[in-house]
Amino acid sequence: MDRKISVFDSTLRDGAQGEGISFSAEDKLKIVRALDAIGVEFIEAGNPFSNPKDLEFFQKVADIRLENARLVAFGSTRRKDILPEDDDNLKSILLAGTEHIAIFGKCWDFHVTDIINTTLEENLRMISDTIGFLTERGKAVFFDAEHFFDGYKNNREYAMKALKAASDAGARSLVLCDTNGGCLPHEISEMTKAVVDAFDIPVGIHCHNDSGCAVANTLAAVSEGAQEVQGTFIGFGERCGNANLTTVIANLQQKMGFSAIPSESMEHLTETARLIGETANISFDENMPYVGRNAFSHKGGMHIDAAMKNTRSFEHIEPSVVGNSRRFLMSEVSGRSTVIKNIQKIAPNISKDSEETRMIIKRLKELEHIGYQFEGAESSFELLIRKQLGKYKPFFDLVDFKIIGERGQEAGEHSAYAMVKINVEGTTKMSAAEGDGPVNALDKALRECLENFYPVLKKTSLTDYKVRVLDSRDATASKVRVLISTTDGVNEWTTIGVSKDIIGASLTALVDAIEIKLLRELELKIRNYM
Amino acid sequence: MDRKISVFDSTLRDGAQGEGISFSAEDKLKIVRALDAIGVEFIEAGNPFSNPKDLEFFQKVADIRLENARLVAFGSTRRKDILPEDDDNLKSILLAGTEHIAIFGKCWDFHVTDIINTTLEENLRMISDTIGFLTERGKAVFFDAEHFFDGYKNNREYAMKALKAASDAGARSLVLCDTNGGCLPHEISEMTKAVVDAFDIPVGIHCHNDSGCAVANTLAAVSEGAQEVQGTFIGFGERCGNANLTTVIANLQQKMGFSAIPSESMEHLTETARLIGETANISFDENMPYVGRNAFSHKGGMHIDAAMKNTRSFEHIEPSVVGNSRRFLMSEVSGRSTVIKNIQKIAPNISKDSEETRMIIKRLKELEHIGYQFEGAESSFELLIRKQLGKYKPFFDLVDFKIIGERGQEAGEHSAYAMVKINVEGTTKMSAAEGDGPVNALDKALRECLENFYPVLKKTSLTDYKVRVLDSRDATASKVRVLISTTDGVNEWTTIGVSKDIIGASLTALVDAIEIKLLRELELKIRNYM
Repeated sequence: MDRKISVFDSTLRDGAQGEGISFSAEDKLKIVRALDAIGVEFIEAGNPFSNPKDLEFFQKVADIRLENARLVAFGSTRRKDILPEDDDNLKSILLAGTEHIAIFGKCWDFHVTDIINTTLEENLRMISDTIGFLTERGKAVFFDAEHFFDGYKNNREYAMKALKAASDAGARSLVLCDTNGGCLPHEISEMTKAVVDAFDIPVGIHCHNDSGCAVANTLAAVSEGAQEVQGTFIGFGERCGNANLTTVIANLQQKMGFSAIPSESMEHLTETARLIGETANISFDENMPYVGRNAFSHKGGMHIDAAMKNTRSFEHIEPSVVGNSRRFLMSEVSGRSTVIKNIQKIAPNISKDSEETRMIIKRLKELEHIGYQFEGAESSFELLIRKQLGKYKPFFDLVDFKIIGERGQEAGEHSAYAMVKINVEGTTKMSAAEGDGPVNALDKALRECLENFYPVLKKTSLTDYKVRVLDSRDATASKVRVLISTTDGVNEWTTIGVSKDIIGASLTALVDAIEIKLLRELELKIRNYM
Repeated sequence: MDRKISVFDSTLRDGAQGEGISFSAEDKLKIVRALDAIGVEFIEAGNPFSNPKDLEFFQKVADIRLENARLVAFGSTRRKDILPEDDDNLKSILLAGTEHIAIFGKCWDFHVTDIINTTLEENLRMISDTIGFLTERGKAVFFDAEHFFDGYKNNREYAMKALKAASDAGARSLVLCDTNGGCLPHEISEMTKAVVDAFDIPVGIHCHNDSGCAVANTLAAVSEGAQEVQGTFIGFGERCGNANLTTVIANLQQKMGFSAIPSESMEHLTETARLIGETANISFDENMPYVGRNAFSHKGGMHIDAAMKNTRSFEHIEPSVVGNSRRFLMSEVSGRSTVIKNIQKIAPNISKDSEETRMIIKRLKELEHIGYQFEGAESSFELLIRKQLGKYKPFFDLVDFKIIGERGQEAGEHSAYAMVKINVEGTTKMSAAEGDGPVNALDKALRECLENFYPVLKKTSLTDYKVRVLDSRDATASKVRVLISTTDGVNEWTTIGVSKDIIGASLTALVDAIEIKLLRELELKIRNYM
């Protein structure tokens, strides 16, 4: 049987220290449920003393039934020269009400003397008193050995004494922290081994990514006998982030023969990672190992050809194992085979060497040159192919539009109105709408007008709207790329527009999105008729 | 003396395989100059056969005088069953005219038999013929041993034979490639050692990041005797990217006692990384080790307090060593000390516990709640403090504005106009302007109108305009965050606006940007008067 490794996620605590990261109570709940569902064993959900909102959250979440995970409250050893009973931080931790508690304590002599300004002996008492105080109250205590590796390098004997104080006081495990994130794998290996050899209780590892080695450092510690891995699910954290648990889990489980989460959960790795990214409202790092959108994307022509023959040729694992999927990208360096695959969906008898293929590739290059990127906007690419092949008849003509924006009644408010004039097979209609900003107003007016002709559009709505300034050095006159995702409740599709003008770019993408829906309806009708 | 490691950058070749990356000839030239200036030894600038633009670039760049770097053209071994003289790929490589050439060849038996469909013997002849053909013509050839590690795992004897064919034919070095990026450091160590022990010529390492270990894998190979490190300067590359050379170089040089680039170049690491990011027009990964904007940012209250006492307490190296700098971030979890530092710049006698501080923090939290983030928009934060302290008198009142957007004369073109009405101390003026989109028009009209009152504004211009859709699930009605950077030729400052409306958000940031300039002018006048 595979050796079991405990996964300890700190997205909600150490992850919240990352720049631009902040969670509402609802966000936190969503993340706790997702981590529980995928089989994470411990969820560090906050620091109840330094952040009163975290305390509230612990009290709220206590009623939630979790299947796999146990919640952990985080705090520090008692302050110097007082009793644990009198320490506000420990009082808050007890109020959090969790059975598991993570306590960080100083292991680097320099931090003891120069940062918290106490004696080396008092710091050992702070560790020992705190853990004793909590274990007497029935708590299971992780000792987070802060700066353990820097401490060990500076004063090995003292760093080990700090661990011994924690172990003797009843800590359930010793978590070695590379708090400054500067260690390299060979250092982590050597020092973790020394600890594993010296203590009988489990050893954990907590790495930061300041040397770009957080994942490798975590794996190195496990290879030397560490049994708990701390990190954050998609690598959030202060400075360069914490060890990315998706990568750690996938490496442990798929490559090193350990069991970190239930094997049936592995295929949910990508969706869980993305859900956390969405909840944190960050732009997901699409190059992220295993779970990024690009992790199994092939762009070079030779690579695409080879991967089509046998995916193992350019993939380290099968993407579906982690719930991800393979993509073939279109670009100037990719061969024609990706483009051809898309063309043949529409016109099966067109070959790689057809004149039509050459024309489409030429048009593709022109559009790429002005800032289009069809990677991810396959629906707009489909329309482009249809237009080039003459297999396209517009469903409507946007005869004219006008938008008006002005200062609102209240200070700081703005009003935006849009008017559109549409022609469908000789019949002209106008609509007007008010919206949150000119793009929203235009979107509303356009839909309202078109629904007169195509009631099926009532079922569609936008799910995503992304703006990217292409060359921000031209400031407000920069080119803008807009990506719009649309759903009809069953399918979702993405369209793109590029323009010097956010209105123009949005309009292109909106019109494409509507055309795609109408095209699908027409195809459905034809299929039913035939 | 430190052992010398050769740095081989493939940003322009393997990096260009990354999703969303494409370089113009000018971009490439800029990157070549930057890499040369920082002391990179080899620059792989393209594949002259598969991309004709790369061939043009080699011919163009031949006249450029480089101080440190040598250019390398990249290509494959000859096709099966033909003579090297008849191979178009090798002809193109010779046309590129570089002294150094990188040739990749198959080392994984599965690729030989199943992907290029030839015999194991013919593949060895392809390697040997190709390298012989090039060395006879005076070329120095890097042999890129494609899929070496996967090949070694599958058929050790054959992988070593492929290296021997290259070495016997006169290759200058054997570059071991983890092409699929799935290896872990302990595997790389063991296999690199076997190669270093078996061959007399230098060994190089080329890693991809599919297991999140590209940097650690590269370091592991160097520890076992590899002398050349391949990668891309900021980690661009297919799928999860290549080994990030900024991280590799900094680790080798600052932590492992190797010399990779001249020591006086180290302090240019951050600016070079950012220049490459800007040239590629990607959003820079701000958590990137050593060179990211967050790499030395402190957010947690305790960390900030400690880092203020002694920066070594929470930093693995001194940021200035790599040309980066330290930042203290404002946020709900950071202590008051960061906020206080900013307040005291304006009102030195306000303390941590003042009523004013409490009020400012309250207002800060309210704004953060609706989507503001003052990390990076310190100028808007300064105005916020001034407003709260009553140390602020607006320089103008934007009485009214109107924007009009409509379909242009030509298909696909749009027109945008803006009118503004400004009041300065009882005098009202109006201006109108046309622009690329409503925001640009509004920016122009506002400036033109205000220049009547404040001619100093003629010196200012926008340098950056960024749009972030905050909760894209509400699509075009989502909240939008706009960041604007402004310069007067000497200083640069950044302001922020958040609104449901891109016009409103942009307007807030524009008005702040102008207010800051006028405030600085006033401060200058006061200083000169006193």
